[in-house]
Amino acid sequence: MKRARFREIPGSVVAPRGFLASGVRCGIQRPGAGKGARPGERRDLALIVSETEAVAAGMYTTNQVQAAPVRWCIPLTRAGRAQAIVANSGNANACTGARGARDARAMAQLAGRRLLLPPERVLVASTGRIGLELPMDRVAAGIADAAALLGDAEEHAAEAAEAILTSDTHPKSVAVEFRLGGRAVRIGGIAKGAGMIQPGMSATGKRPAALPHATMLCFLTTDAAVGAPALRAALKRAVAGSFNRITVDGDMSTNDTVLVLANGQAGHPRLTRVATGDGATFAAALEYVCGRLAGMIVRDGEGVHRVVTVRVTGAASGADAEAAVRAVAGSALVKSSWHGGDPNWGRVLDALGYSAARVVEERVDIGYSSPGSSRVLWAVRRGRAARVPFARLWHAVQPAEFDLHVNLNLGRGGATLLAADLTEAYVAFNKGTLSGPDAASALGG
Amino acid sequence: MKRARFREIPGSVVAPRGFLASGVRCGIQRPGAGKGARPGERRDLALIVSETEAVAAGMYTTNQVQAAPVRWCIPLTRAGRAQAIVANSGNANACTGARGARDARAMAQLAGRRLLLPPERVLVASTGRIGLELPMDRVAAGIADAAALLGDAEEHAAEAAEAILTSDTHPKSVAVEFRLGGRAVRIGGIAKGAGMIQPGMSATGKRPAALPHATMLCFLTTDAAVGAPALRAALKRAVAGSFNRITVDGDMSTNDTVLVLANGQAGHPRLTRVATGDGATFAAALEYVCGRLAGMIVRDGEGVHRVVTVRVTGAASGADAEAAVRAVAGSALVKSSWHGGDPNWGRVLDALGYSAARVVEERVDIGYSSPGSSRVLWAVRRGRAARVPFARLWHAVQPAEFDLHVNLNLGRGGATLLAADLTEAYVAFNKGTLSGPDAASALGG
Repeated sequence: MKRARFREIPGSVVAPRGFLASGVRCGIQRPGAGKGARPGERRDLALIVSETEAVAAGMYTTNQVQAAPVRWCIPLTRAGRAQAIVANSGNANACTGARGARDARAMAQLAGRRLLLPPERVLVASTGRIGLELPMDRVAAGIADAAALLGDAEEHAAEAAEAILTSDTHPKSVAVEFRLGGRAVRIGGIAKGAGMIQPGMSATGKRPAALPHATMLCFLTTDAAVGAPALRAALKRAVAGSFNRITVDGDMSTNDTVLVLANGQAGHPRLTRVATGDGATFAAALEYVCGRLAGMIVRDGEGVHRVVTVRVTGAASGADAEAAVRAVAGSALVKSSWHGGDPNWGRVLDALGYSAARVVEERVDIGYSSPGSSRVLWAVRRGRAARVPFARLWHAVQPAEFDLHVNLNLGRGGATLLAADLTEAYVAFNKGTLSGPDAASALGG
Repeated sequence: MKRARFREIPGSVVAPRGFLASGVRCGIQRPGAGKGARPGERRDLALIVSETEAVAAGMYTTNQVQAAPVRWCIPLTRAGRAQAIVANSGNANACTGARGARDARAMAQLAGRRLLLPPERVLVASTGRIGLELPMDRVAAGIADAAALLGDAEEHAAEAAEAILTSDTHPKSVAVEFRLGGRAVRIGGIAKGAGMIQPGMSATGKRPAALPHATMLCFLTTDAAVGAPALRAALKRAVAGSFNRITVDGDMSTNDTVLVLANGQAGHPRLTRVATGDGATFAAALEYVCGRLAGMIVRDGEGVHRVVTVRVTGAASGADAEAAVRAVAGSALVKSSWHGGDPNWGRVLDALGYSAARVVEERVDIGYSSPGSSRVLWAVRRGRAARVPFARLWHAVQPAEFDLHVNLNLGRGGATLLAADLTEAYVAFNKGTLSGPDAASALGG
């Protein structure tokens, strides 16, 4: 990470030149949803707008069941131009069929009408429960309010960051500044995360309690001047190294979306490739922003108590490394032991053994370190318990974050994943809050 | 299931003619391990012996990390002859290297010496924590005791069934009787399950608290006369339709083992194939016994609150059906919603979508029924919420057991899995009981 070439600054999506944002409450989200939110207080509709047309790129869930807004966005970012993003929380607009497709398009049209843009310049994102139809009257009112309240102050961006949250306990935002061709360039971003629940209570008795659904959304803005193919390449690389390297519970959403708008207002020579030079600087900065937001998502995952970076090296291939790291980070037993602060390497070896990766027990090394440190305390060497006092291993897994190192000693394949433990709180949140058939009678079933 | 051709009878591994069993306490298992066990009370070493040499078959974990006893057994059941099984709980003898291999062989030798058998006629199984060396002095004493206490009464088999338990809350056993060639034939079995913890307390302050490890073991006996290839084929089919169709938490053990001894004392003509006739009757009975024990394992899985049979049909292929059913039954979000009694079909559709199976959202049907019933209440038809009151869906997922039906409507592939919910109790048990580095200082790290 070439951090020396850029620095973090306050703010988020309006830190770059020429961007406006707003976040309003229109009543999509259940009253009282979200920790600490008082009934009726939570914002649930966000708008991010560039003053001038921007180059756009997007990355989307690979789930075969894709929400309507994802289907709306894909051709638009393929075309590579956009000027606004409208997003709601509280309803995923997923598994909603033709009606859902119409609603996603209507969101773009409603926002476009207020902003004097064709709908094809408006990207759309949603997050919330699957299978419910959007209350479009409220959405329309929300879009009108959001358009009227657009602004370029940090508070405007903060309101947008709040409006996309579901069970997140706090908004997630970051911005960086760096120089290209003698000009200051900025990238800003907001995200919502893998919080898995909306502990909801009904004030009226008519609305159902809100139920959990996991989705990650991230919206990025920059005043860099970047060609569409270069922006697409930079975003792909940034997502591959950040959001695609995190896991809370292994459930991939129908709505995961990362969008970036680049309006070129920084005024430097247009970037057309990202492999070297200024393009590489831009790509590194974008990846840094994504990495910071991805880390916030894991750390704020619902019920998360410990965050562990699993580092697999020495795999027979890259695919093997990927299989190995996902098996370890996905094992309920391994994740439970992280929660308990138990250096239970037997479970790690067990998970490696049943993964699709080639594993030779007598070659496996397993160890622990502080985050990012190369000073590894090895618990297992060549498949056998290392001669290290148990107390040292125990201390290595007590911190809120640590690295788990696995060397398969079979080749040069490597993979890393930022993972969360499995806690009672996760289950308690995600088992839902249905108290009976009546409490939920208005739900989408 | 051709249940009419055989009937369940009391007893287990000594129900067939010519089998003896015993279960003793030798101190491998931690004092106080196991729910409801008072310190020092739990049996931890079992012996099952045929009076005459038997045809043997085995099925073992496909984990690449295989425990020493698994490695010991594989060539013996490949050869197809055995006369005894010695098994311990409290220690998996896994990841123990050359020492572990010597210990597994020594268990066979010690038992063989007492039973006047060559070690190659003695199968070995272990279950417990990974990475600890067996206390062979205690094991030797236990084998001597067990050999002295062998008997053919139901209580002897019950003691063996108890001795193989770890966190199971109760022993698991079954026996059936049927007729072949005019002779009564019996099959009996005991199993230990996917209980995931050994909540242990130390009486002396020297022994560490026991920690969870999941393994399934099953030992089957029969007085049927079966050739080795036929027995192998019958066992393979029985396991494929039972133990390989269950999941509690998705973690495959290093020690999973199913063994069967067939001593031929029923006196009917020897079975040489299992596709038709008497051989098919025997195979069906064996599969029934395995199915009963597999169901007991899931229902007694640690922390399990609800048991759900996931039935996928209409997949594009058998492999697709397998991928789909495992994704649904493995999803932390789906399993959490089962626990909460929430008919959250959006999560099911989401899991199908990210599975490796081909899924077309607009074709998917999802519904619920009573166990084994074909009267399905459809929640989703062709990817959209069905017009059914939510209260009916809610009621469908309240029972302790129900079936979840998925029809992908793409082909003829089908697969079924008996699965458990994910509960706070599972996490609480499996996060371990380590209270500090000293409490665990004698562990295998």
